Amino acid sequence: MAAKQTRERILETSLALFNAQGEPNVTTNHIADELGISPGNLYYHFRNKEDIVAHVFARYEARMDQTLVVPEDRLPDLEDVWLQLHLVFECMWDYRFLYRDLVDILSRNRKLKAHFARILDRAATSAADVLKGLAAAGIVRATPDEIRATAENILVVATFWLNFNIVRTARPETDQEDLTRGIYQVMLLIAPFLRDIERAHLNTLAQAYR
Amino acid sequence: MAAKQTRERILETSLALFNAQGEPNVTTNHIADELGISPGNLYYHFRNKEDIVAHVFARYEARMDQTLVVPEDRLPDLEDVWLQLHLVFECMWDYRFLYRDLVDILSRNRKLKAHFARILDRAATSAADVLKGLAAAGIVRATPDEIRATAENILVVATFWLNFNIVRTARPETDQEDLTRGIYQVMLLIAPFLRDIERAHLNTLAQAYR
Repeated sequence: MAAKQTRERILETSLALFNAQGEPNVTTNHIADELGISPGNLYYHFRNKEDIVAHVFARYEARMDQTLVVPEDRLPDLEDVWLQLHLVFECMWDYRFLYRDLVDILSRNRKLKAHFARILDRAATSAADVLKGLAAAGIVRATPDEIRATAENILVVATFWLNFNIVRTARPETDQEDLTRGIYQVMLLIAPFLRDIERAHLNTLAQAYR
Repeated sequence: MAAKQTRERILETSLALFNAQGEPNVTTNHIADELGISPGNLYYHFRNKEDIVAHVFARYEARMDQTLVVPEDRLPDLEDVWLQLHLVFECMWDYRFLYRDLVDILSRNRKLKAHFARILDRAATSAADVLKGLAAAGIVRATPDEIRATAENILVVATFWLNFNIVRTARPETDQEDLTRGIYQVMLLIAPFLRDIERAHLNTLAQAYR
């Protein structure tokens, strides 16, 4: 197996184990075992577990950055919002280990914390830009304070939706159906600002998410 | 020192240490040290740390139950909502160790998880009742789906507000000022459903919270 291939497989297997068992419960020995390679081989590619976490995080960050792009050539519409939310929640799901132990992981690593804060800044700007765009298109009616506060609330609901489901339900873990409900919950943050026609449409769509 | 007094002091000191250092970082030895008593004396009162956590949690639960009472003899108004939110956030602040490591603490203890889920159920009912009351009073305009979804969003924002602040800002911990902003963020979840006159009033109040 070529070195590059091994490196890639270590990152993929680490992500799968982090998601399945929780990052704090996975050691480099678990990862090497799962791959059927020696710990020495693993340490040839990565200094330690934090190094692996940092590389997995870099991929998460690159993907989230892509999903947060707002169309610049035209005003956004509600279809754009649905699509973007699906992309964001899918990215969160693929890297759910991060959200599951967010405070713990970020408090151990100052650099990751700064990077995550940057993503949140970018997401807040993106959400506010979309709301301003919807307001400019006459679809949304909201004051600047309301837009700012709603952008923050979108961030809170999206960031902690997986954990909310864990503590809200008797089931130990969350699944993709919960994720779809998360998208719906974020849309409902926007609903009351909409014109009556779009608001009624959203309420109709809501039936599918209950 | 009478036995009852010692028991009380153990619970008070444990809560203070949990809040200051994070519950996972505090051992029964730390607690005994802080009180200047022997570990044996501590174990005379409580079986282990989980036993202490359970007793601290019972106090939190009793207090939160009191704050979630909705006035039954009349329709609620916005003043009631502000007051109730202050009481809820103050309770969350006084037991902030629980929110800081919520998923971790609840996943270790099935009984606490069930109790916390019950509190969330009760809070969701309380929030929905208040919104329905505001709708009945003609202050709020919202569909049943919007009320249900907004009640859930209020729960997410309130429950994870402290953690959101930890990951959103460069500062390592949150403070009481962040808490006041949390109350504002929850009010802004309700704002867009309000009649124009109440909504404008809330936007004016918002200046104080920025």
